[in-house]
Amino acid sequence: MVQFKKLAVIGVGLIGGSLARVLREKGAVDEVVGIGRGEANLRRGVELGVLDSYTTDAREGVAGADLVFVATPVCTIPKVVAEIAPYLAPGCIVTDGGSVKESVVTACEPLMREGTFFVGGHPIAGTEHSGVEASFSTLYVGRRCIVTPTANTDARALEKVVELWKVAGSTVPLMDPVQHDLVVAAISHLPHMVAYSLVNAVDGYDRFGGDLLSFSAGGFRDFTRIASSDPVMWRDIALTNRDAILEMMDFFSVYLEKLRTLVAEGDADGLQSFFLNSKQKRDAIL
Amino acid sequence: MVQFKKLAVIGVGLIGGSLARVLREKGAVDEVVGIGRGEANLRRGVELGVLDSYTTDAREGVAGADLVFVATPVCTIPKVVAEIAPYLAPGCIVTDGGSVKESVVTACEPLMREGTFFVGGHPIAGTEHSGVEASFSTLYVGRRCIVTPTANTDARALEKVVELWKVAGSTVPLMDPVQHDLVVAAISHLPHMVAYSLVNAVDGYDRFGGDLLSFSAGGFRDFTRIASSDPVMWRDIALTNRDAILEMMDFFSVYLEKLRTLVAEGDADGLQSFFLNSKQKRDAIL
Repeated sequence: MVQFKKLAVIGVGLIGGSLARVLREKGAVDEVVGIGRGEANLRRGVELGVLDSYTTDAREGVAGADLVFVATPVCTIPKVVAEIAPYLAPGCIVTDGGSVKESVVTACEPLMREGTFFVGGHPIAGTEHSGVEASFSTLYVGRRCIVTPTANTDARALEKVVELWKVAGSTVPLMDPVQHDLVVAAISHLPHMVAYSLVNAVDGYDRFGGDLLSFSAGGFRDFTRIASSDPVMWRDIALTNRDAILEMMDFFSVYLEKLRTLVAEGDADGLQSFFLNSKQKRDAIL
Repeated sequence: MVQFKKLAVIGVGLIGGSLARVLREKGAVDEVVGIGRGEANLRRGVELGVLDSYTTDAREGVAGADLVFVATPVCTIPKVVAEIAPYLAPGCIVTDGGSVKESVVTACEPLMREGTFFVGGHPIAGTEHSGVEASFSTLYVGRRCIVTPTANTDARALEKVVELWKVAGSTVPLMDPVQHDLVVAAISHLPHMVAYSLVNAVDGYDRFGGDLLSFSAGGFRDFTRIASSDPVMWRDIALTNRDAILEMMDFFSVYLEKLRTLVAEGDADGLQSFFLNSKQKRDAIL
């Protein structure tokens, strides 16, 4: 099994805390240091046994670490890596949990000094809760963690990052960062853009001066659940994965327009086969 | 309490069977006759105690009824009403459960003979099951049944239809048929059009020759659940509520385009407030 002496987790929340917990539980790390800005949360991490110690000074925290996991909001990952890069021990591997990869990997790779390594990753896991309090060691079991090597990625560092996610219980598909961003744009970012637009549209429709949303039944509430997601997090995702999201929104609009034409023309066969294809594909992923 | 001597239910499935059950249970009807094409289902209705008797001959079934509930697929409601209209007893009220109202009400009102009455209705209730076997007397409790009178609607007949849905446990908003169709287009039909388009788009995206849908996680599956709905039923809804659905699809597209512009421009404040408004409105209907 892959083995690390000192893990530094930067951003000790659900994602960072859960990885620390599982690697510790499996005996894959000897020591875990938490790094963050909120002392209360870090202290709680020590109390819960997730961390051995903590610091608010990232440079100090990463000293001597052979593995650094950056689990901050995706916009700040390059800033964090720029700050710690000069203080990393030889051989140290830095990986992250950001949900957008091309901008992160492109920014972080050139920051690394000779003999230290960056490998991008994205564990597709989460709950509606946050903070170290919400972390648990089985968060990643049965999930996918997409790891995104490039032509510059060190083979041995890549292998170790893949291994650590396997230790956490995930399957680990490898993907080009651009491909990764399109995949998550399609299956996650696009649905969010659509759901947010849908709620705003229904809310904004005022032909009767009434409150359309008050008529919504369970189906609408379920369908739009993701439109209640954190606006700041989604602002950052929209900013960092712009090109892939635009590509997917445009691709979606083509299909919506196809359907609009079928509805406008009253094309019974066309409508039925459009709906049937969707049902069959949807049922296949149940 | 409103009281009927003989209820004829045309189309004895979840919707029709559940109304028969509750009206019988509350003592609001003396006799229930089931009318349909599938004898096995009708026989089962009698065995379950939902019906007193059944017939496959609609004309015979409605003879002497003072209440007829048409619970067939929405496309066939006008055909059914045209068939039975000449055979209705004086004073008989015909109402329906169709999920589209303007086309139904416009078609059915002129079919009624002097002294018999049509009142359109739409109980917003259902489960993923169908058939009389799936019916139950509390299906309508706490739900809304939108009743859609017009200038031609008889006031006494309207009052009785409102009362019967209250007996079933529903609240009963009154709405103009056109307004009804826009409301359901917004909160139900539009989300279905969007979900079907989304699944087809993600399925159709082949830039990597891979299978994007295989990467979908729980969020995508939840969001697209309604894209597994019955293609034939939704074909009929798209055909019968065409204008309202087109209006809502176009209205939605304006919002999607607004969001696309915010993403393209990297407008951080605009994105955050777009997402925040959606979250606030969505949270308010939880």
